[in-house]
Amino acid sequence: MKIAYIGGGSREWARKLMFDLALCPDLEGHVALYDLDLESAQLNAELGNWLQTQRGVVSRWQYAAVAARSAALAGADFVVVSIQPGSLQVMADEIAIAEKYGLFFPVGDTTGAPGLIRGLRAATIYAEFARAIAAECPRAWVINYTNPMTICTRTLTRVAPELKVFGCCHEVFSTQEYLARLIAARLGGDPPPRHEIQINVLGINHFTFVDRAFYQEHDLLALLRAHLAEPDVLRPFTRAEVEAGGNWFQDNRQVKWSLFQRLGILPAAGDRHLVEFLPGYVVSPEELFRWGVIRTPASYRIQRWRDAMHSTRDLIAGRSPLELRPSGEEGVQQIRALLGLGDWVTNVSVENVGQIGNLPHGAVVETNALFTRDQVLALPAGALPPSIHSLIARHVANQEMIVQAALTGDKEMAFHAVYNDPASGLTVDRAWSMFEEMLEASRAYLPHFTKSN
Amino acid sequence: MKIAYIGGGSREWARKLMFDLALCPDLEGHVALYDLDLESAQLNAELGNWLQTQRGVVSRWQYAAVAARSAALAGADFVVVSIQPGSLQVMADEIAIAEKYGLFFPVGDTTGAPGLIRGLRAATIYAEFARAIAAECPRAWVINYTNPMTICTRTLTRVAPELKVFGCCHEVFSTQEYLARLIAARLGGDPPPRHEIQINVLGINHFTFVDRAFYQEHDLLALLRAHLAEPDVLRPFTRAEVEAGGNWFQDNRQVKWSLFQRLGILPAAGDRHLVEFLPGYVVSPEELFRWGVIRTPASYRIQRWRDAMHSTRDLIAGRSPLELRPSGEEGVQQIRALLGLGDWVTNVSVENVGQIGNLPHGAVVETNALFTRDQVLALPAGALPPSIHSLIARHVANQEMIVQAALTGDKEMAFHAVYNDPASGLTVDRAWSMFEEMLEASRAYLPHFTKSN
Amino acid sequence: MKIAYIGGGSREWARKLMFDLALCPDLEGHVALYDLDLESAQLNAELGNWLQTQRGVVSRWQYAAVAARSAALAGADFVVVSIQPGSLQVMADEIAIAEKYGLFFPVGDTTGAPGLIRGLRAATIYAEFARAIAAECPRAWVINYTNPMTICTRTLTRVAPELKVFGCCHEVFSTQEYLARLIAARLGGDPPPRHEIQINVLGINHFTFVDRAFYQEHDLLALLRAHLAEPDVLRPFTRAEVEAGGNWFQDNRQVKWSLFQRLGILPAAGDRHLVEFLPGYVVSPEELFRWGVIRTPASYRIQRWRDAMHSTRDLIAGRSPLELRPSGEEGVQQIRALLGLGDWVTNVSVENVGQIGNLPHGAVVETNALFTRDQVLALPAGALPPSIHSLIARHVANQEMIVQAALTGDKEMAFHAVYNDPASGLTVDRAWSMFEEMLEASRAYLPHFTKSN
Amino acid sequence: MKIAYIGGGSREWARKLMFDLALCPDLEGHVALYDLDLESAQLNAELGNWLQTQRGVVSRWQYAAVAARSAALAGADFVVVSIQPGSLQVMADEIAIAEKYGLFFPVGDTTGAPGLIRGLRAATIYAEFARAIAAECPRAWVINYTNPMTICTRTLTRVAPELKVFGCCHEVFSTQEYLARLIAARLGGDPPPRHEIQINVLGINHFTFVDRAFYQEHDLLALLRAHLAEPDVLRPFTRAEVEAGGNWFQDNRQVKWSLFQRLGILPAAGDRHLVEFLPGYVVSPEELFRWGVIRTPASYRIQRWRDAMHSTRDLIAGRSPLELRPSGEEGVQQIRALLGLGDWVTNVSVENVGQIGNLPHGAVVETNALFTRDQVLALPAGALPPSIHSLIARHVANQEMIVQAALTGDKEMAFHAVYNDPASGLTVDRAWSMFEEMLEASRAYLPHFTKSN
Repeated sequence: MKIAYIGGGSREWARKLMFDLALCPDLEGHVALYDLDLESAQLNAELGNWLQTQRGVVSRWQYAAVAARSAALAGADFVVVSIQPGSLQVMADEIAIAEKYGLFFPVGDTTGAPGLIRGLRAATIYAEFARAIAAECPRAWVINYTNPMTICTRTLTRVAPELKVFGCCHEVFSTQEYLARLIAARLGGDPPPRHEIQINVLGINHFTFVDRAFYQEHDLLALLRAHLAEPDVLRPFTRAEVEAGGNWFQDNRQVKWSLFQRLGILPAAGDRHLVEFLPGYVVSPEELFRWGVIRTPASYRIQRWRDAMHSTRDLIAGRSPLELRPSGEEGVQQIRALLGLGDWVTNVSVENVGQIGNLPHGAVVETNALFTRDQVLALPAGALPPSIHSLIARHVANQEMIVQAALTGDKEMAFHAVYNDPASGLTVDRAWSMFEEMLEASRAYLPHFTKSN
Repeated sequence: MKIAYIGGGSREWARKLMFDLALCPDLEGHVALYDLDLESAQLNAELGNWLQTQRGVVSRWQYAAVAARSAALAGADFVVVSIQPGSLQVMADEIAIAEKYGLFFPVGDTTGAPGLIRGLRAATIYAEFARAIAAECPRAWVINYTNPMTICTRTLTRVAPELKVFGCCHEVFSTQEYLARLIAARLGGDPPPRHEIQINVLGINHFTFVDRAFYQEHDLLALLRAHLAEPDVLRPFTRAEVEAGGNWFQDNRQVKWSLFQRLGILPAAGDRHLVEFLPGYVVSPEELFRWGVIRTPASYRIQRWRDAMHSTRDLIAGRSPLELRPSGEEGVQQIRALLGLGDWVTNVSVENVGQIGNLPHGAVVETNALFTRDQVLALPAGALPPSIHSLIARHVANQEMIVQAALTGDKEMAFHAVYNDPASGLTVDRAWSMFEEMLEASRAYLPHFTKSN
Repeated sequence: MKIAYIGGGSREWARKLMFDLALCPDLEGHVALYDLDLESAQLNAELGNWLQTQRGVVSRWQYAAVAARSAALAGADFVVVSIQPGSLQVMADEIAIAEKYGLFFPVGDTTGAPGLIRGLRAATIYAEFARAIAAECPRAWVINYTNPMTICTRTLTRVAPELKVFGCCHEVFSTQEYLARLIAARLGGDPPPRHEIQINVLGINHFTFVDRAFYQEHDLLALLRAHLAEPDVLRPFTRAEVEAGGNWFQDNRQVKWSLFQRLGILPAAGDRHLVEFLPGYVVSPEELFRWGVIRTPASYRIQRWRDAMHSTRDLIAGRSPLELRPSGEEGVQQIRALLGLGDWVTNVSVENVGQIGNLPHGAVVETNALFTRDQVLALPAGALPPSIHSLIARHVANQEMIVQAALTGDKEMAFHAVYNDPASGLTVDRAWSMFEEMLEASRAYLPHFTKSN
Repeated sequence: MKIAYIGGGSREWARKLMFDLALCPDLEGHVALYDLDLESAQLNAELGNWLQTQRGVVSRWQYAAVAARSAALAGADFVVVSIQPGSLQVMADEIAIAEKYGLFFPVGDTTGAPGLIRGLRAATIYAEFARAIAAECPRAWVINYTNPMTICTRTLTRVAPELKVFGCCHEVFSTQEYLARLIAARLGGDPPPRHEIQINVLGINHFTFVDRAFYQEHDLLALLRAHLAEPDVLRPFTRAEVEAGGNWFQDNRQVKWSLFQRLGILPAAGDRHLVEFLPGYVVSPEELFRWGVIRTPASYRIQRWRDAMHSTRDLIAGRSPLELRPSGEEGVQQIRALLGLGDWVTNVSVENVGQIGNLPHGAVVETNALFTRDQVLALPAGALPPSIHSLIARHVANQEMIVQAALTGDKEMAFHAVYNDPASGLTVDRAWSMFEEMLEASRAYLPHFTKSN
């Protein structure tokens, strides 16, 4: 079996995959790592091959960095993609531009003007990937990890509809884990394993919702409703306590819970993502603190990315200990199921063929799916309730416009997506100015979106 | 022929209808005026009958104020409805509540939180009308003039689908008139009559758009685009110049034009209405002034309403001169066409049977229609472009939720509409507080929406 | 104004158009007649120019036969198409082949295996026309008269969606004329003019239905129901009386009426066409006689076609008198309306944009439409009732398959249409044999549908 | 756990269920058997309780015949329904009536005029069941085995949409078994177990199709195509050899295979059922013999039904040996999965929520589904290809009309379904006569469908 890894110099996802493969007893083969940053890919190859020599590793995989994308893809059975669509500096720039217009995005990689412009860059790159995969390994399964997840995945299916594509994200898992802890807290006993928390997932990546959650006979949404009715569970946060949290990724669940309380459906993603999809939250740092949300500084991302390479070198050199643990991602189980080694049900981003009854066919949506031999079959998740439908439909429309704009170089359509972003809420003239500034910051990546007009 | 007029004490629409009937040579019959304010209806009856005695009146109509609604409706061929759904004071209150939450609505009768709560009151009243009409004159044509137009019309069709219903509004006419003046200004000659400006209308009442406009062979959207490219046509306004305008209904077209410039489709309604459908404009009086928009003070509305009765009395008493002129409304032409006296094409609000390809069937939308004997046939208007589709779809969803909430007493659903209003952009907790305050202001009209919860 | 006439040697439609143009006072221009049979086109040009010299002719038109299609089309404002898609001999052959399989088609130009194979030939030819028109006169209005109407019209819209296309057929007029005579017979007075019979038309060409028919306040479907309840109106016919009718085009209305009686909706086309769309009628000559239906012999068609040329020559030479009368077709009124000379409502075949709510968008359907300046706007006709919906939907699917098969050379798909034809009712092996024989008869016209497979 | 069995006197399905329960180690509870024929239910109860005393039985179930339906249903967790909708004599009568009109149905329980009239009876009965279940055990899972499967299941979901309903049928299994034998024959080795034959199922019960079939990496449709290309696999049968088969249920697969050959999609049901859905096959006994199809005589059905009671008595009395074997049905596995004892994938009839992309939502269709705790989640099966779509859509429309007609007593609509039946192909007058005769034969069961009209 051959896995091609585009973005094979990845300092997070590639490593997770290598560790999970190392712990999987019934798969073996080789992995071709391709990256614009060949040095990173080479280091990852070194790490992967070194892993095979370590105690506790139960599989046999060979890793190689490959300089040519076509060679990496040729004959692959699976293609994994996790890239950075543009530099971290561009990401920092567009978050800063948004701030000039009164918009304070905590993440900036999925939606809002920064996420949509990132999507424009990503779709431009992914259109090329789609054609390359269709040429080199048209029967391979393509697994996407890059954000914006929906836009990347949708570009692959738009450009090469014959490809077998899905996108994976762990964002929903934390809601299952939280519900498991809630069971323990309110019903006693240990938290059950995440997989025993049955939930119905529907929405789009990072803006998914849960309208049914059971553990055995226990209705977990009723349990959560009871929990929220208790004093001080729902409450304003202060800047001081949020900053004292000391964690750039903390999730205080105030946004999620207040939406559940008022809209009757539970958001599944972290609050940092959630606020970026909604009007009214990203209007000031203070408003975000009130909800317990902190913004990840661009400087932190850049530092973390730089540090990753050192820690890999330390590991191989024996300067830090190897801890072999499953990553918590499900890519390897999914691959096993697609090979016929046991069905698997999990949430996934794929084209809507009706699994969400009131979103357009063809749009990429996130629901549960059955992974079985050579098939990913989306499970029917029902329709979005009106309380949340038009908000999600609007994001879907924006994502479709960004993909279309990227494929055709239609600058007006790209702007229409930014203008329609619910979180922005700018008048048309200010939205246009912000859009032009962001395009300018990305001009190295979007040469076909000229300044004129 | 019998016309039943619900809201027959109306101080604006009823008088317009009486004048237009007076000038129409081929119709005659009687009009039953019903109103909660019987005195107003009696004065209108007096005016109508007096009109028949005046020079220049070419038709024979008898008017009577009728105290019982069922008697007014019994056997009617046409039912005209124009009411005030709740007092002007309630309207003033909810505009003031919105201001506490940072939302400054210039009109407040169509959308935004004030328009939606007004819609909740109106739908509650119209549900009764629908049942009364279905009982007394099920084959009558029902013509609605009340705002919120879409919600009122939709309530009639939801509650009594067998009724023949449409809603009329002159808002689009002013765009045709403006385009006629633009022809004169740029191509020379006199402005052509409004009816020779062929436009394709699509959207919902007060948020309609024009994607095709021709006068003979002249493409008027191209003409407008050329006009906007000239210096200082698009520009910020100052508070001083707007206030100097001295007209509570002035339309400086900056919102309309900037949307046309950036979204590629021309809004047809006045800017005062437009801003209420959009994010980003109603955030402060200053922002509105920048766009040349002024808010109509509630005190002005109340005064105008009081004055109307005096001016009617003055007219009948000969203290002011009678000026017989067509009102500019088209109700009488529509009635003639429905009676088989000549086909007529105009814009109208009716249930979507596909005239707008990408809005839900059943929703009330505004497009052109062919009026012919006993039929109003909506003309296919095409699909909304993505630049504006999701915004309109969101308003449609909100209107449907308000009607549904009014019919079922579902307070949560009413809130979901308010929460999803694009102009509001409030976090879910603030939206809820505003909603509760507005319900409280309307409690006399909405007894089934209790405070609890 | 320039009209291009493809099939300009037509011995029926071209002449009708020339006579109608001669009687129309407010149009003038020139007509380019193009035909594979140049001699016929030249004779028609001679006839047209001769007409201009005759008394009673109120317009000025110049006619010229043009040998090159591109020259004929270049710069045209209107393109009229009426051709024979393959020889009359091929038509005779395929009707004869069908008889070998127990299928006796009275016409054979619209549906059934002969009509579908003719459609395959026509779509192959029309695909070329579409490209030629798009190249030479993309803004022209294209008016199709050729059968199979739906397949020809649909091929134009599929291949060149930017073209403005509609198809015209007089078949529905005779139902209006019949209803006018029924009014006279049952209500007294003279039959009203056809245009005062208001009907709602829905279906596909030659298989259209009427679910609403009014003359002023009179419900004509109720009137017809009363008529059919009288003795001997519905009854079996004998071969002898049908043959005694002495008219190859007689319509005894037994099929139409019995369907109306049992299905509750009135077919609008002649019985000769109707039976070809239905199971159970074309199974033997005797069954057809029982319904008063006679088959047009191929020999008659060939003779009529030959005679037409002589009668034209006789007319020009003064050997037969000129009778200037409107043809009863509406092409000239439609052209006037499209030029802005007065709106016109009539039935027409155009792409479904929702005018029939439960047929697929894009399929060509027949309903009423409003002709206005540069637009044909289909009027909403509602949904087909379940009694007839699935039968019509099946024909629509077959027509779509034939167009698709012609454009892609997909022989299997062409067979699937023939197999699914409701009138055939053959087992799959017999349907395949018949299909192969018919393709063989058409091999000169369908070289891309090879015998193999 | 409580199972209520409506039709608990069933001589086939009830016994199968009892045997499968007896062999299932992890379920226990009691079964309430209700039947109009109380004696049969009592005998089944006796059999069930006797079974518990036998060697090899691994579960504990108690059986009781219950005289009142409401008592049988009260508090049930599962409701199984298998009834005879009208006597076997009525079934014999309507098959005989059809023969008078030239229609020779081999089965007559699913479609064609006999199946549709049976459906009318069944829907009338099932409407009552739906209300009873909704009243007594609204949270129970309802499993239907009665034919016509689709009409029965759909009546339950139409009348009581809140019920959890599915229909089970083993018809598709035999195609899997055949493909397993084909693997052995062409690839060597033993036939793999049925469950390892992965197929995608789509259509409606007894008219399902397979467009994808794999065993590990082997494409079984390609394998079958190769098989059919061999000499004499596809060939006409003779009456003599069919009768010599000596099996009323023999399936010679000529219909299935020739459709697969020409339409490119493999029917999954037996040929006896298939021909009833198609035009052209049931036109004579000879035509059926040509395809290897024999009709089940009504006398055989009646005899078998009578014999079943004796054989049960013989078994209990020890006059015949007990053979404990799984029935091959999957009801018990499905129940286990719904109880959370392990996911299960199989084909099932449920409402379409999009699992078949081009059939109407709400119609009952057959595809694969995932059975999991308290949920049956239909797996996306794609769209029907045009070669077969309009034929299936027509049957779906007929089934919907029968349910609607039964619920409203709309005789015309019931006729419209019969008229539209593809297998009948009668002219409208003959179809009406046959319909009236069949209604007369069923008058004891359909009192609301009067003879008049």
